[in-house]
Amino acid sequence: MADHKVLFDIAKEPVVVPTGTLLSEAAAQAGIEINQPCGGQGRCGRCAVCVESGEVRRRSALRLSAEDVASGYALACQTVIEGDVVIEVPPQEKIERRLTTDRTVGEVVIPEGYDPQKSQTLRRLNLTLSPPSMDDQTDDWSRLQTAARKEAGIAPLHASLEMLRKMGDVLREGDWKVTAVLNTSTWDDTDSPNQLLSLQPGYADEDQPLWGAAIDIGTTTVSVWLVDLHTGQVRAQVAEYNQQITRGEDVISRIIVAGKEGGTEKMRGLVVDTINGLIEQACKRVKAEPNEIMKATIAGNSTMIHLLLGIPASSIRLSPFVTAVNHIPALSAIDVGLTMHPRAVIDCLPGVASYVGADISAGVLSSGMDDSDDVVLFLDVGTNGETVFGSKDWLVTCACSAGPAFEGAGVLHGMRATKGAIEEVWVNGDTYDPSFRVIGSVKPKGLCGSGLISLLAEMFLTGVVDKGGSINTKLNTPRVRDGDHGSEYVIAWASESATDEDIVITNVDIDNLLRAKAAIYAGFSVLAASVGMPLEAAEKVLIGGSFGKYINVEKAVEIGLLPDVDWDRFQFLGNTSVRGAYMALIDHTLRRRITDIAARMTYIELSADNSFYDAFMSALFLPHTDMSLFPTVAKAIGK
Amino acid sequence: MADHKVLFDIAKEPVVVPTGTLLSEAAAQAGIEINQPCGGQGRCGRCAVCVESGEVRRRSALRLSAEDVASGYALACQTVIEGDVVIEVPPQEKIERRLTTDRTVGEVVIPEGYDPQKSQTLRRLNLTLSPPSMDDQTDDWSRLQTAARKEAGIAPLHASLEMLRKMGDVLREGDWKVTAVLNTSTWDDTDSPNQLLSLQPGYADEDQPLWGAAIDIGTTTVSVWLVDLHTGQVRAQVAEYNQQITRGEDVISRIIVAGKEGGTEKMRGLVVDTINGLIEQACKRVKAEPNEIMKATIAGNSTMIHLLLGIPASSIRLSPFVTAVNHIPALSAIDVGLTMHPRAVIDCLPGVASYVGADISAGVLSSGMDDSDDVVLFLDVGTNGETVFGSKDWLVTCACSAGPAFEGAGVLHGMRATKGAIEEVWVNGDTYDPSFRVIGSVKPKGLCGSGLISLLAEMFLTGVVDKGGSINTKLNTPRVRDGDHGSEYVIAWASESATDEDIVITNVDIDNLLRAKAAIYAGFSVLAASVGMPLEAAEKVLIGGSFGKYINVEKAVEIGLLPDVDWDRFQFLGNTSVRGAYMALIDHTLRRRITDIAARMTYIELSADNSFYDAFMSALFLPHTDMSLFPTVAKAIGK
Repeated sequence: MADHKVLFDIAKEPVVVPTGTLLSEAAAQAGIEINQPCGGQGRCGRCAVCVESGEVRRRSALRLSAEDVASGYALACQTVIEGDVVIEVPPQEKIERRLTTDRTVGEVVIPEGYDPQKSQTLRRLNLTLSPPSMDDQTDDWSRLQTAARKEAGIAPLHASLEMLRKMGDVLREGDWKVTAVLNTSTWDDTDSPNQLLSLQPGYADEDQPLWGAAIDIGTTTVSVWLVDLHTGQVRAQVAEYNQQITRGEDVISRIIVAGKEGGTEKMRGLVVDTINGLIEQACKRVKAEPNEIMKATIAGNSTMIHLLLGIPASSIRLSPFVTAVNHIPALSAIDVGLTMHPRAVIDCLPGVASYVGADISAGVLSSGMDDSDDVVLFLDVGTNGETVFGSKDWLVTCACSAGPAFEGAGVLHGMRATKGAIEEVWVNGDTYDPSFRVIGSVKPKGLCGSGLISLLAEMFLTGVVDKGGSINTKLNTPRVRDGDHGSEYVIAWASESATDEDIVITNVDIDNLLRAKAAIYAGFSVLAASVGMPLEAAEKVLIGGSFGKYINVEKAVEIGLLPDVDWDRFQFLGNTSVRGAYMALIDHTLRRRITDIAARMTYIELSADNSFYDAFMSALFLPHTDMSLFPTVAKAIGK
Repeated sequence: MADHKVLFDIAKEPVVVPTGTLLSEAAAQAGIEINQPCGGQGRCGRCAVCVESGEVRRRSALRLSAEDVASGYALACQTVIEGDVVIEVPPQEKIERRLTTDRTVGEVVIPEGYDPQKSQTLRRLNLTLSPPSMDDQTDDWSRLQTAARKEAGIAPLHASLEMLRKMGDVLREGDWKVTAVLNTSTWDDTDSPNQLLSLQPGYADEDQPLWGAAIDIGTTTVSVWLVDLHTGQVRAQVAEYNQQITRGEDVISRIIVAGKEGGTEKMRGLVVDTINGLIEQACKRVKAEPNEIMKATIAGNSTMIHLLLGIPASSIRLSPFVTAVNHIPALSAIDVGLTMHPRAVIDCLPGVASYVGADISAGVLSSGMDDSDDVVLFLDVGTNGETVFGSKDWLVTCACSAGPAFEGAGVLHGMRATKGAIEEVWVNGDTYDPSFRVIGSVKPKGLCGSGLISLLAEMFLTGVVDKGGSINTKLNTPRVRDGDHGSEYVIAWASESATDEDIVITNVDIDNLLRAKAAIYAGFSVLAASVGMPLEAAEKVLIGGSFGKYINVEKAVEIGLLPDVDWDRFQFLGNTSVRGAYMALIDHTLRRRITDIAARMTYIELSADNSFYDAFMSALFLPHTDMSLFPTVAKAIGK
């Protein structure tokens, strides 16, 4: 066998190794420690390096995309040296970022050919009125309307009583030159068009932004994008926990709290405070005043929208699970209590059902699936597991009560994806010892959803749990033991943890996770069956929700949460809800499309669907009772 | 000469008198005192009696209409006996009522063929919704809209946020049977149609009234008519002084007060309190709750409407005299502060200009002149002397700042038409002693507008004042004398008055009255000239305003306030403003007609019209410099 010179960019000297040596072995010889959390089994992708020059052979590139390989990436534990090579060892953070965000859509891009004049319903006009005289005693309001008609072709105009009260003074203060902000139409043609929202003396600078806000009220996180409606540009993006979280983690507990005496008002106050805080924060960032925001589009699940508006939500929780209202009329900021211009137009996007809300309508728009020739599976992994299956021709949707296991609830050491949460785990197939990555790179406190998925997949692949989810207590490792909650596996010892106690996963936790993933997968199955198609018909699998962004697809497929289709079909879209709200904010044709989407989606109530139970039972295994549905997992296990 | 037996119905025995004896003389002989305030000169009409049978000859019947004469009425002082006669002496009140109200329109009559279903924009529906189920998870709001569409063909429906908040509970409380009140359209097509105003659990009784209010905000008096919109019937009519009156008698002083710090809000509060008090009063009368009133139409002059809505009114007072707004959009009771159902539709009728307001638009509708083949002169005698001249083909209007003289202001002993006000005066042509009628039949405190008109006419006809309005100080009566304010005439001595001082009219008072009547008459003249017509072209002279109701036409013609046309052409319409508001309330086609009327009226600004000054100067005489314009007055003077 020939020897080859291997130079690692971060090493001082090259090392010489024989043909067939693994890159990971060569690195060790060069004194370079390459992370191998999975024990060198080619599963975790954390040992990826870049082959700058020379010949190598990749035994496996399971965690690498075709582009990765084309760029020279190789897994150090799965790649053998076949010539002199130069290897770049990327900083670990770069690897991590690639793994977790590679498939998410990048920055917010203003749609091509976007024309605010055509797409915007808001108009800011510098108007010049003819002053009254003894020869022309027309009233102020008619005079203003005439100016809007003559200068911008907008008529008739409507105004609130407050506007009529201040109008005369503003006209005279501005010496009959004023800046008017108008809403020229709404998504609902029957609403009053051409509403005069604000009037200021004098002319506004053309460059001065016209502010709007796209808002997503998540059960956990509220996001606000501050947008200059004159250009469509997102100028600030801020997010915070929904303050309602102190009154319950999921929508059901929120509805229960809201149902108590004074609860609706309390819950309304909490989310309004959250939004107002974010608005203030975003405005500070761009040196704007909240009072300058003239419009907001709001997405969120049906419960969140009801609670924001103080509309009782209890019927959402109780059979037959109906909302009070799916299509909210146009409101004013002052009605909703938001700190914007009091007459700012508040557009709460339409939902479809109690558990398929405006966040999903907006998500579908943002995913583009309603305009897609291909069949697409869109899902928002979370408590409710909302799923949409379809194309430009048809859309079916359902929500499966997955429960909050993937949000860390109902799991002994589960937690939300905050600092201290284990977000990815690798289990060494020989020693059964885990490695993990912790958010914030601190001592771990518990496991968040992506950590749980990753842990379960690793435990399954290494045989720590069996197909049915039972922990194999016969393994030769102190990490597997009997605990207070039955069998358990220790991920971090007390000495390693921030809580000074062992971080474990129990059989009960695993059962909860299996039920959650089974519900979601069963949802897909029922949707696909409802249109007589196999799940693999989905040319694309689009994953929305900020939680979805952190899911490792491979792991999620391995546990049977996501369907086993070609990796290239998966795309992480991030917060599709706020993005859909943004699209609706800047373009009224897109706003109408959301209404169409909501109307087009056929909602399937899973609890009333007999086939759901069967599908759920079949999915209660790792990855599934029918292994033919998961060919790549079958192959990985075989290996 | 033959003797005749004369039997007065209220006398025990007949008296016998020779042919040619006056009825008044026969009455005296029978011991019956017949009132002859004018000294038996046939001018006052107060001695009218009814000839039941027998022959008499009427020398004059100046105060009697053709119908009066046909019914047997005769003036006792002007009628000679020519045979045996039986005479009915009507109670004095009957005479007074006949004299003052004869020519006013009677009770409110519901228009013939009135169909509330077609004419009303408000609809009360008993709706039955299909309850939600697992097979039909439609949201509450869509379910309600479907019921309205299916049962009444009304769609789409709009609702406020408050409505959406309470809707779910109401639907369930009523077990999916509810009573909905909808506003199906507004006068302005661009406004939101089909607004859901109220929703109650269970069905409403068909007979239960659907309440609306027609409101007239007069500068002095506010009137409220409570109407059952299901039948069109006026169920209660109430009126009170406008509480703003404590802050100034006329619109100009009100605007000045409103222009001070906090003044707009103060004035708004006063009129809102007045209306709310009246609503409460009217509701009590029909055992309704103010909260059941679902609609109100409001008329009033432009200043009153501005002050009601808290819209600054100062531009009305200052050149070039423009309003902030003539066409007010649809408002809700809660916006305006009226104690009705919070979502009751508030329709402030449209005005034309600063001094031709919604009261005149409503008045024109109520007069029917906008639909008249004949040319009509319509006037609202009052501070502003609003006048409209025209027919179905054209309408011109003006307002002459007559000033408040006819409302008792600017006159030493002037007062409003309340208890203690002298409302009619007769001067004895021989003794120059006056008789008078006092409102409430008490000791007099002063003179109201109709009293002043009547006094001035009598003084002119008896020579107490000359054509130029100067008091003839050479008359042989202690009632004419020099006082602190120049020459004066004593109407009541201190001993007769409630104030323990002489009630007089001075030359200064008379100058003020002349200026007021000259302004009004000049207004007519300019209007008529503007369309190239003589004033006599008016086939009808319609007099609106509650003050107008009490004017004695004859006296008003004698002083040159009203044009000298055939008596039959005059008609007193009473409060045309509230009547117009009522018509608009019960019939949306009439409501639209008011908008048309407001648009059709060509407003002539007198202060910018050169011919006005000339016309005014010519009218500063009794009755006018050009006596050919007042032929009957010339004749009366001659006599």
